[in-house]
Amino acid sequence: MSPTLALAQELVARPSVTPDDAGCQTLLAERLAPLGFKIESMPFGAVRNLWARRGTAHPLFCFAGHTDVVPSGPVDDWDSPPFTPTIRDGRLHGRGACDMKGSLAAMVTAVERFVRAHPTHQGSIAFLLTSDEEGPSIDGTRRVVEQLQARAERIDYALVGEPSSRAQLGDTIKNGRRGSLNGVLQVHGKQGHVAYPQHAKNPFHACAEALAALCAEVWDQGNAFFPPTSFQIANLKMGTGAENVIPGHLTAQFNLRFSTESSPEAIQERVRAILDRGDFDYELDWRLSGHPFITPVGELVAASRATIAAVTGIDPTLSTSGGTSDGRFIAPTGAQVIELGPVNATIHQVNESVGVRELDDLSSIYEGILTRLLATRHAPHRDGPAAS
Amino acid sequence: MSPTLALAQELVARPSVTPDDAGCQTLLAERLAPLGFKIESMPFGAVRNLWARRGTAHPLFCFAGHTDVVPSGPVDDWDSPPFTPTIRDGRLHGRGACDMKGSLAAMVTAVERFVRAHPTHQGSIAFLLTSDEEGPSIDGTRRVVEQLQARAERIDYALVGEPSSRAQLGDTIKNGRRGSLNGVLQVHGKQGHVAYPQHAKNPFHACAEALAALCAEVWDQGNAFFPPTSFQIANLKMGTGAENVIPGHLTAQFNLRFSTESSPEAIQERVRAILDRGDFDYELDWRLSGHPFITPVGELVAASRATIAAVTGIDPTLSTSGGTSDGRFIAPTGAQVIELGPVNATIHQVNESVGVRELDDLSSIYEGILTRLLATRHAPHRDGPAAS
Repeated sequence: MSPTLALAQELVARPSVTPDDAGCQTLLAERLAPLGFKIESMPFGAVRNLWARRGTAHPLFCFAGHTDVVPSGPVDDWDSPPFTPTIRDGRLHGRGACDMKGSLAAMVTAVERFVRAHPTHQGSIAFLLTSDEEGPSIDGTRRVVEQLQARAERIDYALVGEPSSRAQLGDTIKNGRRGSLNGVLQVHGKQGHVAYPQHAKNPFHACAEALAALCAEVWDQGNAFFPPTSFQIANLKMGTGAENVIPGHLTAQFNLRFSTESSPEAIQERVRAILDRGDFDYELDWRLSGHPFITPVGELVAASRATIAAVTGIDPTLSTSGGTSDGRFIAPTGAQVIELGPVNATIHQVNESVGVRELDDLSSIYEGILTRLLATRHAPHRDGPAAS
Repeated sequence: MSPTLALAQELVARPSVTPDDAGCQTLLAERLAPLGFKIESMPFGAVRNLWARRGTAHPLFCFAGHTDVVPSGPVDDWDSPPFTPTIRDGRLHGRGACDMKGSLAAMVTAVERFVRAHPTHQGSIAFLLTSDEEGPSIDGTRRVVEQLQARAERIDYALVGEPSSRAQLGDTIKNGRRGSLNGVLQVHGKQGHVAYPQHAKNPFHACAEALAALCAEVWDQGNAFFPPTSFQIANLKMGTGAENVIPGHLTAQFNLRFSTESSPEAIQERVRAILDRGDFDYELDWRLSGHPFITPVGELVAASRATIAAVTGIDPTLSTSGGTSDGRFIAPTGAQVIELGPVNATIHQVNESVGVRELDDLSSIYEGILTRLLATRHAPHRDGPAAS
């Protein structure tokens, strides 16, 4: 059995549902410490975080990821128990096998081989792990990055092991993410009997045109890196269930995934302007989940592309689509950030799985990227992030 | 103590929450039988109904009403226990005092005086009582009317004792009601992640314009008897609570109160036409709660108006506004139907009450109407409903 598969199985056997780490980080630290990594545990509340670094020089290459997994859902829906790693049809099955314990295992075995081959590599290698990526993401990567910034420890390259691939390993590198902005709109009308609408004010009737206008709004056209900003109402609620009561309040919860063409402030102003066209009282609460970030073509993307081509023969697509990741907390520090991991077709689903061969190829890709970036001491490295 | 107040207290003391009659109809029957009323109990399921008739000739004047009451809500919110009739500040307090046990008491005492004064009155007098007016209204008045129709027993004049007055006893006679049409709209989209709107179809986004158009639609202008038809969305629901999921379905429940200018069929067709303008799948379920009905000025309205003026000095307004009543089941048989009862300011509320003096005046009004319609044998009565 390959060392990557073996380690992935050990990780999947630990039922680390957010925020429980279930011993995963200890297991990984026990593999990294003998390689010369300095291990730091950075717990915040119920969340376990690990910062492990080998070397003190720049550039600092950081593998980033999470040991937590989403819940399995009904165990009976699974063909094998979700926390019993099971190989079937050439694939490792289990919750977290793909998102992202397989990637963590591949990172560790890649580093083991790389360090054996290049014990005096240039720069540093680090691991930034958290048990709070699938949850609120408050006490995880965000906090670790704050700690690092407080002591001026700066990441140059971050590779997040999220399952970025669509159909084949390596077909997609995420080199950025859209921003995410949540809004909760409460519209206040006046309750009354449906038989006496003149004595009431139906909040939906009052804001229907404005909501339709929000849905139809074209926020921007996107750009070379980002698809257009999108607006989606995810939850809408009005009424108590009674058929004969005009309700007094309506609540709409919505989310915008926004490109760098629209700032959160500009979006908020435009939403308010559209709502203000109507004649109704409302309250609007905003929560910014993440700014958009982009890592243009540079050393990290170039090294990843070349390695993927060498290992798989594929020329990967750069993409900024899809959901958020912890990369959003690392990118604002000035690091180059990409996400690169296995095919995401089964993540968060019943019978989540990752290919056994895929794990070994992923480990080879991670090792190759390290080799291209850190193996040889090329031109003296500036003490700063690589040019982009 | 006046006999009306005394009887109202006896009724209020019986906690007859729908469909429980709690002995109210037996009590009333015991008052009516000695006057020569033939008593028929017409139970359906848990619902108690009473049909009592004095005489066999036409015109048949029917007092209609209900012995059931809505729940009291938290007893501690009341200043006196809801089922302990309590006189305070010149008012009888208790659940049902106003809606409509006070009216039932006034009807009985009015008939007692009228029959004493006119033992050989023309036509017939009847009571149609149910314990299912505040509930589903399926096994109550509707069923009794069906029974009467099956045996060709036809009501000419029906006076429903619902609290029709707004500010002063007698200021409003309801001489009709709008129809009521319920609809449940389900819009089907396609569930997905908010980050990938291109792979999902947000049901609200799809139907937002159509819903706004329904809210803005002018259905008709009403007419001399009815206010314009109104459309109200009472309940709207979409989403599971998750912020990052585009939901697959939306449900909107709405109600139309419609005038005689719009038929249910025409309304349904127009709703469908508006929805069909959009590009989305939907299901639409309809439930007709009641057709509109109108009792134009005729003997019943004229007698009521003249009596109210004589007792209170007020010239009542004719109105078709407000909620539904069991009058909707009687009107289609060809009867003239009005609703006339006390001031409705406290109905369905905590500390429901009716004025002590109001009860006596109401009894006088009911007696006066009987006197004008049945006391003297005027021109031979056609064996059919009075001309309208």
